[in-house]
Amino acid sequence: MGDKLKIGIVGVGARGMRHLKMLSIREDVVFVAVADTDSRRQSLVEEVLGYSPNFYTHGEDSYKEMMTTETLDAVLIYTPWHCHLSQSVFAMEQGIPVGLEVGTSFSISDCWAFVEAYERTKTPIMLLENCCYRRDIMAVQRLVEAGVLGELVHLRGGYRHDIRFVLLDENGNFGEGTNGESVWRTPLYLKHNADIYPTHGLGPLAQMLKINRGNRLVSVSAMSSKSLGINDYSGKQYPVMLGDIITTQIKCENGETILLTHDTTLPRPFGLEFQVQGTKGIWQDFYRGGEEDSYIYVDDNEFVTDKQWSRAKDILAKYDAPIWKKLGEKTKEFGRYDIDFVMFDDFIECVKHQKPFPIDVYDLAVWRSITPLSEKSIRENSLAQEVPDFKKGK
Amino acid sequence: MGDKLKIGIVGVGARGMRHLKMLSIREDVVFVAVADTDSRRQSLVEEVLGYSPNFYTHGEDSYKEMMTTETLDAVLIYTPWHCHLSQSVFAMEQGIPVGLEVGTSFSISDCWAFVEAYERTKTPIMLLENCCYRRDIMAVQRLVEAGVLGELVHLRGGYRHDIRFVLLDENGNFGEGTNGESVWRTPLYLKHNADIYPTHGLGPLAQMLKINRGNRLVSVSAMSSKSLGINDYSGKQYPVMLGDIITTQIKCENGETILLTHDTTLPRPFGLEFQVQGTKGIWQDFYRGGEEDSYIYVDDNEFVTDKQWSRAKDILAKYDAPIWKKLGEKTKEFGRYDIDFVMFDDFIECVKHQKPFPIDVYDLAVWRSITPLSEKSIRENSLAQEVPDFKKGK
Repeated sequence: MGDKLKIGIVGVGARGMRHLKMLSIREDVVFVAVADTDSRRQSLVEEVLGYSPNFYTHGEDSYKEMMTTETLDAVLIYTPWHCHLSQSVFAMEQGIPVGLEVGTSFSISDCWAFVEAYERTKTPIMLLENCCYRRDIMAVQRLVEAGVLGELVHLRGGYRHDIRFVLLDENGNFGEGTNGESVWRTPLYLKHNADIYPTHGLGPLAQMLKINRGNRLVSVSAMSSKSLGINDYSGKQYPVMLGDIITTQIKCENGETILLTHDTTLPRPFGLEFQVQGTKGIWQDFYRGGEEDSYIYVDDNEFVTDKQWSRAKDILAKYDAPIWKKLGEKTKEFGRYDIDFVMFDDFIECVKHQKPFPIDVYDLAVWRSITPLSEKSIRENSLAQEVPDFKKGK
Repeated sequence: MGDKLKIGIVGVGARGMRHLKMLSIREDVVFVAVADTDSRRQSLVEEVLGYSPNFYTHGEDSYKEMMTTETLDAVLIYTPWHCHLSQSVFAMEQGIPVGLEVGTSFSISDCWAFVEAYERTKTPIMLLENCCYRRDIMAVQRLVEAGVLGELVHLRGGYRHDIRFVLLDENGNFGEGTNGESVWRTPLYLKHNADIYPTHGLGPLAQMLKINRGNRLVSVSAMSSKSLGINDYSGKQYPVMLGDIITTQIKCENGETILLTHDTTLPRPFGLEFQVQGTKGIWQDFYRGGEEDSYIYVDDNEFVTDKQWSRAKDILAKYDAPIWKKLGEKTKEFGRYDIDFVMFDDFIECVKHQKPFPIDVYDLAVWRSITPLSEKSIRENSLAQEVPDFKKGK
């Protein structure tokens, strides 16, 4: 195995398997170990990899056995969200750098626990927020950096994705005791009323706003619509708590505002609906943000009453990120998962060269804190909630 | 003048003149009187009308003289916003039905004063909210009524219009003592931080949600960005209070939420950005909401992971409003002001036949109340503010 990066993976469900398969084409990576509570995944993993890593499938604590037994350069975690914290902290305590799949936290103390584990162990963790690696988003980040949109004022994003077919199992049931992904995900809809998936929308915007790098999220105010989607779709009467649409307004220390939307239980085309607005112009996407769905207006200070949108294609090509120039051709086979391949290149290069992760533990903590803060704000009549300073003024 | 409707007009600035000219082509309307503080407008009015109404141009109270002297079937009011209440109430007290140009109110007591004047005098007033008469909006209202989008859950709209060139006068100055429209409008930006122009976005949505007709707005939570636009544009340092972007979340009694945006001081193409989302589908516009910028998705309950937007053109044609079928051809000469012509047809027919106005005093009061409520919410850290029940449970 020579110089290859030795990677362990926790959780080889649909998402874990997809990334395992994607990474298997890289020649600088080898999967030496897999932990999963389901031993039946072994043959699938072996088939995909063409070789056999060590398997740890003796129950909930198998990941601990893997992390203490194996010599790992990094671990990737793809488990249900309630496992993220304990598994990440355990890995960090073993000195194993972590790549953590997106998800969220349901308490501020959980967010702090990630930070404290990092500060205690100095083991880095990267949140695998693939939306930060969208080609258009990375170009917009560079365009913002270059000042094309002026000083930023207002940004929008969100998760507007009809996932009713994931939340209900194959028998159309919702909640505890169902099969598939819904077994751990749907109970969240019965227990919480919050933005429970903030990072796809927030991550790219927080990077543009230099959150944790001279700017900070300071307050969060949220509102929830009624909840009709699941019961309308299932034809049953589940006691769903989560509103179909959660809107969350966030204020930054430097005065910018962010609007996030969580929208997963009504019929609609997918969209993250990014808008990035500054004193000189505005960029926004529509639908998936492909070349044809990306619009920009940049002010020329002319007196024009009928300002027009332009397709952003040409200007974004001009600001194309180096990592996309390098990998663009290679990613084509992955279709819309091309962003994951680019993200892993960044992750792996950081691990190899012991560089700081571009999405670090402070980003992880503050992005995930939107869930408990929006929940509290909704409970308290939209009153803005203070965002903890996870960097303690650093 | 026979059976013609005798109309008086207060304020013949740019907006008043546009509507006067538009209405002059109707054969069932005659302008018998004009009140304006500027006597120089007389020749312009005569030129447009081809005849000479009586003029009242002796100062701020000329409108009172006009309303007490003339026999009017209706009065149209196009004055600065701070004149709206006193002029409307005076007209109602004379028993003259009022058409009031859009604008807003800066206190809840002002909103109540409209309602009280109506209840005391029984003289009707219609808010001339032309966006309620957009052809696409009226078709969407009928489509919503027919249940195509299911039960409504979340709606968006707003006023996203770069009006910096209106706010600054021709010398690039802002604030008191400037010329043109900015003389009364810009001081609002120095004194308030609120959604100061809520009705274009809210009006059409409130109608779809049957606000005041079985449903109610109950709470309002708002957030403001920093304010950079005016000073960046003017190159000066005015003490602007109004944030460049105000977002306002509104909860309805029946559990729906509305998101409004006020966005007038940053460079961007015009857009009201309507979204109407229910349990069966979603409609949204882009840019001006023309035929090519109107999108819909209606659920077929099929398991489709890659749901697609369709152009809404064909389905909106199917739900085209009768008033548009009747007037569509006639409106073409008015370009994007076609909606005003359609609105006036509704207004005039109501006055002629003493039918209730479709946008009545309760709509006017609750739509305009968003300004003081958003202002208070911004001041109180986004805490949701209760919306008065202007109908007192009726």
